[in-house]
Amino acid sequence: MEPAVLLVRFLDLIGTFVFAVSGAALGVQRGMDLFGVLVLAFVTAVFGGVTRDVLIGAVPPVSVASWHNLALAVAAGLLVFRFNKLFDQLQQPVQFFDAAGLGVFAVAGTQKALDYGINWPMAAVLGIISGIGGGMVRDVLTTQVPTVLRADIYAVAALAGALVVVAGSAAGLPPTAVALAGVVLCVFLRLMALYRGWRLPVVTSRDP
Amino acid sequence: MEPAVLLVRFLDLIGTFVFAVSGAALGVQRGMDLFGVLVLAFVTAVFGGVTRDVLIGAVPPVSVASWHNLALAVAAGLLVFRFNKLFDQLQQPVQFFDAAGLGVFAVAGTQKALDYGINWPMAAVLGIISGIGGGMVRDVLTTQVPTVLRADIYAVAALAGALVVVAGSAAGLPPTAVALAGVVLCVFLRLMALYRGWRLPVVTSRDP
Amino acid sequence: MEPAVLLVRFLDLIGTFVFAVSGAALGVQRGMDLFGVLVLAFVTAVFGGVTRDVLIGAVPPVSVASWHNLALAVAAGLLVFRFNKLFDQLQQPVQFFDAAGLGVFAVAGTQKALDYGINWPMAAVLGIISGIGGGMVRDVLTTQVPTVLRADIYAVAALAGALVVVAGSAAGLPPTAVALAGVVLCVFLRLMALYRGWRLPVVTSRDP
Repeated sequence: MEPAVLLVRFLDLIGTFVFAVSGAALGVQRGMDLFGVLVLAFVTAVFGGVTRDVLIGAVPPVSVASWHNLALAVAAGLLVFRFNKLFDQLQQPVQFFDAAGLGVFAVAGTQKALDYGINWPMAAVLGIISGIGGGMVRDVLTTQVPTVLRADIYAVAALAGALVVVAGSAAGLPPTAVALAGVVLCVFLRLMALYRGWRLPVVTSRDP
Repeated sequence: MEPAVLLVRFLDLIGTFVFAVSGAALGVQRGMDLFGVLVLAFVTAVFGGVTRDVLIGAVPPVSVASWHNLALAVAAGLLVFRFNKLFDQLQQPVQFFDAAGLGVFAVAGTQKALDYGINWPMAAVLGIISGIGGGMVRDVLTTQVPTVLRADIYAVAALAGALVVVAGSAAGLPPTAVALAGVVLCVFLRLMALYRGWRLPVVTSRDP
Repeated sequence: MEPAVLLVRFLDLIGTFVFAVSGAALGVQRGMDLFGVLVLAFVTAVFGGVTRDVLIGAVPPVSVASWHNLALAVAAGLLVFRFNKLFDQLQQPVQFFDAAGLGVFAVAGTQKALDYGINWPMAAVLGIISGIGGGMVRDVLTTQVPTVLRADIYAVAALAGALVVVAGSAAGLPPTAVALAGVVLCVFLRLMALYRGWRLPVVTSRDP
């Protein structure tokens, strides 16, 4: 495999695991049984990437053509199910890894869309979909308005990572360094939102 | 471009803008931040058409292969975000444009499905999906039972527009006139439901 | 048609009808109008199979390329709408048929994925998706957490049926007998969950 392909694949594995953990943790919290937890872990982990692959015509999607992501998501789900209390105490690390997964998926998704010849604005959108798709479905399946739509610079962080890839690709910079920069920027923005309260504008009513 | 293709594309742009406005308006109402509003505007605008394209094998879908619909949805979302109070006062016009968007998408979706060799009953269904898909996802993402499933001759109006296209196509009538007739019928039925209270039957319990 | 293909198609028709009934019954219960009921019947009946077909690249999906499943779902929806009280009294039979539909879809979906050259773990997952997809969307559209995620050995029963197909296919056994065995096992597990209270483990807090 070429280095760029290898990098994307490696980042994909990390992101898959992290999102599977977030899905499984929510499933346990909602009192789902073991299999429900595993389903939610898998769906959260692969939905964004599968949607991207279907939309760019890369069918069957990576997560369907190979069983690796399934095995990874199931392993993550089993770990969360077994060591539930541990993951409860790891709230902060989980938020960090969730930010990392977001950046990783957004960057890898944008790169893959560009590789398939998609124009750059839509490649960035496909990167965002890769990053936020899993979390959106996780939230819809547990009947809450998706976090990503509510606030806290989530999708914007994914967009920032995606645009780094777009710009780096246009400038002909080495993909590995560009991908790393994209992930770092995404994680940075997300952490600033979490710990410094960075926000995007909201329409506020000023009726007396 | 041929006239028929040009017409479908033109109607598509109007429908995209109108549905983006409806998604953005709901996002603002739910207190979402700017980016959440834009995401909801884009998803509402393109989900129906993207689903249709994936199902008929037209991949990547128009809204992915080109960035025009993205730009249009973002512009609509920014307008709603900026001139929120104006759109609030425009409740009635928005309902009218929503009906127009519904008719436009249903008609254009049916025509495209027929062009791809889909049989007529499923072409009508794909027209309905094109018309109501975006609104369904908009409602699911904000955790309400989709309007279209609850009442008020919404999907039926889309079906009527779709059937006009099917019949016109079978009779070999000029596509432009047929499309116009389909949109007009759909808008008419929807407005009758809104202002005259036309309803479909509901199962009512008659237990004493 | 070969016997195996014919069998899959036949099972598909039964499953389609049964799931359409379950969607329509929920729609009536929620006070939807006739068309909403038909939409929910159709979506519940075909969503799992359509998702499977899109993911394995069998586009347009069977339920789009042919209008048979549409007609069947509409017929089921009309029957439920007309004879609503009868179906109310048939709660137990409906649960049985729902279990049968689950098994049928899981088995047929796994077989089709294998036929398309998908590796066996993902073929089993695609079988599960075929079986539980429609019910998940039905529940999401009526804003409840999908039954399948909450409990009661539902997806696990589908998995068991799928694995019978995988094992039988690997062993070269006759497809018809294997499919029948898969459906029977799935129905058996589901009925044990319903009437004997078989459960999967749940994480329970033991804080004093």
